[in-house]
Amino acid sequence: MSRDGLTRMTKIEVVVRGSDTPSVSNLLTGAGVSGYTSLSGVSGFGHHGFHQGRLLFNETDTLALIIAVMPEENADAVIAGLRTLFEDRSGVMFVSGTYVSRPDYFQ
Amino acid sequence: MSRDGLTRMTKIEVVVRGSDTPSVSNLLTGAGVSGYTSLSGVSGFGHHGFHQGRLLFNETDTLALIIAVMPEENADAVIAGLRTLFEDRSGVMFVSGTYVSRPDYFQ
Amino acid sequence: MSRDGLTRMTKIEVVVRGSDTPSVSNLLTGAGVSGYTSLSGVSGFGHHGFHQGRLLFNETDTLALIIAVMPEENADAVIAGLRTLFEDRSGVMFVSGTYVSRPDYFQ
Repeated sequence: MSRDGLTRMTKIEVVVRGSDTPSVSNLLTGAGVSGYTSLSGVSGFGHHGFHQGRLLFNETDTLALIIAVMPEENADAVIAGLRTLFEDRSGVMFVSGTYVSRPDYFQ
Repeated sequence: MSRDGLTRMTKIEVVVRGSDTPSVSNLLTGAGVSGYTSLSGVSGFGHHGFHQGRLLFNETDTLALIIAVMPEENADAVIAGLRTLFEDRSGVMFVSGTYVSRPDYFQ
Repeated sequence: MSRDGLTRMTKIEVVVRGSDTPSVSNLLTGAGVSGYTSLSGVSGFGHHGFHQGRLLFNETDTLALIIAVMPEENADAVIAGLRTLFEDRSGVMFVSGTYVSRPDYFQ
């Protein structure tokens, strides 16, 4: 898809425990991401993937879904930072493309 | 988009009545999907599409948005299962591509 | 991605102040969009982009995330309408492609 007047960006959605939101926020800010949207009221179920021998999330964990949109060139640093974060915190990230109308808001 | 070290997956977002969340959960588990994220605090408006003569959702319905990410090869079974579910339950699904960093969590 | 029996649509996600949800709703309806999903419990952080000299969102704003899915041919009107809305309201939109199973629900 390509649209007149829209600019391609990378959208990274992150699901982490609510208590890990500040770590994600610091990581985003440090990578030059100017803003993000955070959703509460999120539950995680299953994810039988284990992390260092434990479940990724317990069904009782309070989770957050954080949606960050950034220029492609900032995404590598965010992805690398999240990989490192996930070495000792539970979490998943979904990386996809999206288009925005006002790229200056995301730079 | 293609990124080093990320694996392409299929993301299926499902909007159903909150009371139908267990049916979607069973369907996902049965199709080998290891986990999903569920969001509450969701409202549906409009959707003038009719389902067997009734509105898809009433504006007073309490809805859930369920986000499941899975390998491409599991997606067909989930899509087929949701089509069957939607024969007698209201709901919509959005299917798109995404990339994840730890594919073992989704298998 | 292309899937048998699924129809490509445009997904527009909009983040606005909760109080601006009715304006977005009217815009969607006016552009022939038959329905949308709205999520509450949304916070916006940062977005150092300025809008007429002020922050896009304050950290205390109560925000809504509105997800609308529509045929490609309706998207241009929605995007144009949101651009106009954003001339005097704070907000961001993310435009991406998705696939749905029942296109008649979105027309």
